[in-house]
Amino acid sequence: MTPVEPHPDISLVLGGARSGKSTFAESLARRYSRRVYLATAERVDAEMVRRIEAHRRQRGPGWRTLEVPLDLADAIRQESAPQVCLLVDCLTVWLGNLMHHGRAIDAAQAALLDALAEVSGPVVLVANEVGLGIVPDNAAARAFRDRAGRLNQALARLATRVYFVAAGLPVVLKGTE
Amino acid sequence: MTPVEPHPDISLVLGGARSGKSTFAESLARRYSRRVYLATAERVDAEMVRRIEAHRRQRGPGWRTLEVPLDLADAIRQESAPQVCLLVDCLTVWLGNLMHHGRAIDAAQAALLDALAEVSGPVVLVANEVGLGIVPDNAAARAFRDRAGRLNQALARLATRVYFVAAGLPVVLKGTE
Amino acid sequence: MTPVEPHPDISLVLGGARSGKSTFAESLARRYSRRVYLATAERVDAEMVRRIEAHRRQRGPGWRTLEVPLDLADAIRQESAPQVCLLVDCLTVWLGNLMHHGRAIDAAQAALLDALAEVSGPVVLVANEVGLGIVPDNAAARAFRDRAGRLNQALARLATRVYFVAAGLPVVLKGTE
Repeated sequence: MTPVEPHPDISLVLGGARSGKSTFAESLARRYSRRVYLATAERVDAEMVRRIEAHRRQRGPGWRTLEVPLDLADAIRQESAPQVCLLVDCLTVWLGNLMHHGRAIDAAQAALLDALAEVSGPVVLVANEVGLGIVPDNAAARAFRDRAGRLNQALARLATRVYFVAAGLPVVLKGTE
Repeated sequence: MTPVEPHPDISLVLGGARSGKSTFAESLARRYSRRVYLATAERVDAEMVRRIEAHRRQRGPGWRTLEVPLDLADAIRQESAPQVCLLVDCLTVWLGNLMHHGRAIDAAQAALLDALAEVSGPVVLVANEVGLGIVPDNAAARAFRDRAGRLNQALARLATRVYFVAAGLPVVLKGTE
Repeated sequence: MTPVEPHPDISLVLGGARSGKSTFAESLARRYSRRVYLATAERVDAEMVRRIEAHRRQRGPGWRTLEVPLDLADAIRQESAPQVCLLVDCLTVWLGNLMHHGRAIDAAQAALLDALAEVSGPVVLVANEVGLGIVPDNAAARAFRDRAGRLNQALARLATRVYFVAAGLPVVLKGTE
C-alpha cells in the first residue's frame, strides 16, 4: 500500500477576529475535491445565526457541512477518511461552548487531541488568537484566554503546518507551504 | 512616457497600539522628498489633541499636513501626484470617525478603494490590528472590530506591500522590501 | 582577554498571554548552565500565587530564582556575570507594578535600559504585546497600553535578537537564531 499523502496532515490557521483566517483555511481545504466543514458555532442568537449564514454563503457549494458545537472528537473520528479534507472552524468557539455548557474541558481537549492524532486524511484547524489585548477585567475572560492560548499551543505541537493570518495574509510559523 | 516608479505603489502598515507602526510608515515615506501627511484623528478631547501634537512633533518638519477625519477619498484624489508620497495615518481611526458621525460606511469605503486604485504617486497607509484580544462585551465594539478587520483585508488586497509591525520591527506579509 | 560570546547578548521575546513566550524564553536560557530567573510577578492574590507557583514547577530545577517586582535595574546589575544567563519574566508585569506602586516610571525605565546596556553576560527578556485588541474603555488601561508599547520598542532597539511568539512558535523580528 502506497501512501498518497503525508500522514498526519494537519494545518493550524491562527488569527484574530476578521483577519481572513477562515477564508485562508478554506483555500487550503480547496486543494481537495471532497471536503467536510465542521462548524462549531451555536445558533444562540440572531447575531450568531447571521454570522453562520454569512460564512456559509461565502464558502459556496462543494462542502458537506456539519454543525458540531460540542462533540468534536466524535465528529472528527466519524468523518475523517483518506482524500477527504476536514475543516474545523473554529476551535476557540468550541472551547467557549464547552465552558458555557459546563463540560469537562480537560477531558474534551484530550479526546480532541487523540482524535486528531489518529485521522486518516487531511485536517485544517482554525483557531483564534485572543491573548494580544489588554488583560481583561473579569476572571472568567482571563480564564478563557488562558485556556484558549494553551489549546493553541497543544494544537501547534500536533500540527504539521501552522500559519498566523493578518489582513488575509499568512505568516508561516511551522512547516512550509 | 517612461514610468519612474512602479504604479500603483501602495504600502500598508499594520500594527497594534504603540507598536511603532507610524514611525515605520514615516520611514517608508521619507524615501520621497515631497510628502503629504493625511491625519485622520479628530481633536475631540484633550487626550486626542495631546496625541496629535505629540505625533506632529515626533514627525518633524518636511511634511505638508492635512487633517482629514472623514473625506479621505477626496483628499487622496486631490493630493496624489507623481513623486509626492501620501501618508494616511490611520485608516482605523477614519473608520471610527465614519461610524461616530453616522456616515454611510460601505459607500465611503468603496470611494476610498476607488481613489487608491487611481493614485498617481506612492501612498503609505497605516491601519490598526484590533482583532487579537478577547471578544469585546458590547455589540458596537464587536461591529467595529469586524468592520476594521474587513477594511484591512480589502486594503491588503490592493496594496503592493503589506507589513505587520511589532515593537517597531516589521514582518513582511506581502511584497518585498 | 578573548571574548567567549558576543556582547551585549540580549534577546527579547514578545507574545500575548499564554502564547508560550515564557517556555520559549526558557529554551533560549537553557543554552547556559548557570541561570538566574528574575520574576517580576507580585504575590498580590491567590490567582497570582497560583500562576507564580505553576510557572516555577513548569520551569523545573536548575535556576536561581529571585522575585523582583520593582527594583529590576539593581537586580540586573547585581546578578549579571559572564556565562550566567538572566531571564527576566516579564517586563510588562514590572511596568504594571511600577504604576500600581506610584513609582517614577520614566526614571525606572531609563535605569533599566542603562543596566541592560552594561550587562556582562547574556540576558533574555520577556514582554507582553498588549496593543492588538480593541481600544480599552478606560483611560488607565489606555495609558498602560501606551507605556507598554513604548517600553517594548525601547527594548527592541537595545536587543540583539527579537522574537514574536504565537502558539509556542517564534517569528524572528530582529537578528538571527
